[in-house]
Amino acid sequence: MAELLTGNALVGQSGGCTAVINCSLAGVVQEAARHAAIGRVFGMAYGIQGALAGRLLDLGGEDPTIIQALCGTPAAALGTCRYRLQPDDPARAVALCQRHDVRYFFYIGGNDSADTSHRIALAAEAAGYPLRVIGIPKTIDNDLPITDHCPGYGSIARFVAEATLDAGRDTEANRYVDPIKIMEVMGRNAGWVAAACALGKRSDEDAPHLVYFPERPLSVPRFLDDVKAAYDRLGFAVIVITETMRDERGQPLAEEGATVADAFGHSRLVGAANRLVNLIQDRLGLRARYDKPGTIQRSLMAAASPVDLEEAYLVGQMAVRYAVAGEHDQMVTLVREPGPAYRCRTDLAPLAAIANQEKKLPADFINDAGNGVTDAFRAYALPLLGPPLPTYPRLTRAVEDGGHEPQISADERR
Amino acid sequence: MAELLTGNALVGQSGGCTAVINCSLAGVVQEAARHAAIGRVFGMAYGIQGALAGRLLDLGGEDPTIIQALCGTPAAALGTCRYRLQPDDPARAVALCQRHDVRYFFYIGGNDSADTSHRIALAAEAAGYPLRVIGIPKTIDNDLPITDHCPGYGSIARFVAEATLDAGRDTEANRYVDPIKIMEVMGRNAGWVAAACALGKRSDEDAPHLVYFPERPLSVPRFLDDVKAAYDRLGFAVIVITETMRDERGQPLAEEGATVADAFGHSRLVGAANRLVNLIQDRLGLRARYDKPGTIQRSLMAAASPVDLEEAYLVGQMAVRYAVAGEHDQMVTLVREPGPAYRCRTDLAPLAAIANQEKKLPADFINDAGNGVTDAFRAYALPLLGPPLPTYPRLTRAVEDGGHEPQISADERR
Repeated sequence: MAELLTGNALVGQSGGCTAVINCSLAGVVQEAARHAAIGRVFGMAYGIQGALAGRLLDLGGEDPTIIQALCGTPAAALGTCRYRLQPDDPARAVALCQRHDVRYFFYIGGNDSADTSHRIALAAEAAGYPLRVIGIPKTIDNDLPITDHCPGYGSIARFVAEATLDAGRDTEANRYVDPIKIMEVMGRNAGWVAAACALGKRSDEDAPHLVYFPERPLSVPRFLDDVKAAYDRLGFAVIVITETMRDERGQPLAEEGATVADAFGHSRLVGAANRLVNLIQDRLGLRARYDKPGTIQRSLMAAASPVDLEEAYLVGQMAVRYAVAGEHDQMVTLVREPGPAYRCRTDLAPLAAIANQEKKLPADFINDAGNGVTDAFRAYALPLLGPPLPTYPRLTRAVEDGGHEPQISADERR
Repeated sequence: MAELLTGNALVGQSGGCTAVINCSLAGVVQEAARHAAIGRVFGMAYGIQGALAGRLLDLGGEDPTIIQALCGTPAAALGTCRYRLQPDDPARAVALCQRHDVRYFFYIGGNDSADTSHRIALAAEAAGYPLRVIGIPKTIDNDLPITDHCPGYGSIARFVAEATLDAGRDTEANRYVDPIKIMEVMGRNAGWVAAACALGKRSDEDAPHLVYFPERPLSVPRFLDDVKAAYDRLGFAVIVITETMRDERGQPLAEEGATVADAFGHSRLVGAANRLVNLIQDRLGLRARYDKPGTIQRSLMAAASPVDLEEAYLVGQMAVRYAVAGEHDQMVTLVREPGPAYRCRTDLAPLAAIANQEKKLPADFINDAGNGVTDAFRAYALPLLGPPLPTYPRLTRAVEDGGHEPQISADERR
């Protein structure tokens, strides 16, 4: 048993928001109240960047009903930042902790935040100031190493799976008007979110029909061939890409040909999906649209995964228990238990092993053609989404003298 | 009591999809089964366009569990079309009905579909063929006259209200990274969907902070002044526009300066939000992003309104009852009962009075500045969304030595 360290706690949120990151915050605050070693609980407003500018909140003194309500509140109630520590910052952060008698430092975030936490841990050691630093995983990108998955991923996965399935039915019904749909989702350098778009698919007609991953550069001719083949087979097609896709020359699709002046702006950056829609219309002569759920995909509470909400709370709660028990310079991880039923427990991994690492989609989660997912991915991801995704029927009974494809020409369309 | 007319029924879906249009279809099929006057129930595959091409489905012979499951299935299970009737088409549609002994014709759609139905009603009368034609309202645009509102609107309204509120919290938390968000929603020539984005807003901090409507041309200098003022006041801003917005010269924002050649496409159409994001970055020097939920906003079952689902079923069911009772060349309408509690009953309006009409957002639903909604709009719309929208807390307790705005300069951002 480690020495009992008595003092205050400080907790911050960093990086992109998720639907469940506030559950982790509630887990920290509520668990901290159960430990006599922890006095006050401070929050960093806008992450380490705000904290270094003197912006703290008194979370321990907050109305408990507000803390409880955080479990159903999206985004980051403390505010967040994307800030790369400057050389003096780790020592400044330790000095901040000393001024406020902070002995427990919790930082909820992804790879970059693990780096921030690790550097502060090292600075505290260098200063001879006992400080227990624990990272709490959070990223919709699901790209942290060691942990089985990241809180935040299950909820964005549920949203994009439902959105792709539901909007796919829209494209299917509307095939003689707008037969091609591109869904542009998040994911930085990893295809975890794109892959999740396929989790509601149960038949060839179900969307998506093609999924592309940032792990594989997009060959434009190959892409067009794929789209044409799907359209020829089904009469419509739903295609998933990430906003960060690059072509075979390594150029981002979103930036190619940017900053052309137009009538009232100076630049004309266009997104990846927008460019591919134009390309499909020009090269294949097919009407195409795109959906770009943007920050909605990582925020919408109506589609949050109950499993994700629960695990996000758990990692916050366990961070406090690990720290009080003497752990330091570690991140909480989720470990999937073997067996047919999905269960996770927590463990720890050194922050140094998490910092700035990216876990890409494994090769066996991507199909051979590089445009879809495998059953191994489905088995990995589906339990994270909570209750089964909806299934939708299709009408089956063509009338005897009907049933042939109507000959609908483009010029008949309104 | 009208003469009892005995024969088969034909039902179709037309125009843009919604989350609830299949409820109306289920309402027709299930109610038709209760009336001895109605024999078989046929469905048009892909609307009148598919029906005229000989594509019919046997809905009355379909597995009843599939018909029931339509109530939870988004989009249009029959398929839909956007087709302007050619001169011969009304007579061809009547001939189709004669071939299949169809005496009851139901068409679920919006303004254009009412025109289609009305023209077929006139053609049946001209041919001396007794046919009872009833329109069933459906449009997320909510722009049909006479009816209090349109099935489909409550669900898209619930989605965009939740999405704006939730993604607004994301922007608020992330204000030092991407302080400006534009939400680009649907709505053709009317601002009903844009207005609905404001239905979750309860405080000045809650999104949206600015809402623009296609009823009012967008003055770009005025828009930039509004955005700057909101940002100066709050430190971030969420702005709603429709994809169809036009500027003061009447030019669509989405098409201005289009068809510039780029590296691999011939055209570079960019959407309205994409252009405004570039403009805000260029003119105000503020990082901006946009969300374009596209067809997700009209499809996502996870955000459907229970009130909308119920009313969509009701209008389908009542269409059958009205037709069997002898009504013809009418559309079912929803009539809001007076009184404090929300209740709707159905009535009828002549198809000719609906066809090709558009109900714009009334002036008293738009604030004086033209950039927000009024309490009158909230009172009108909120009951259509079903259960109360979520409320989210904000943390309140700044620590005594903190609480000032951190001085975060742009070059500190990662």
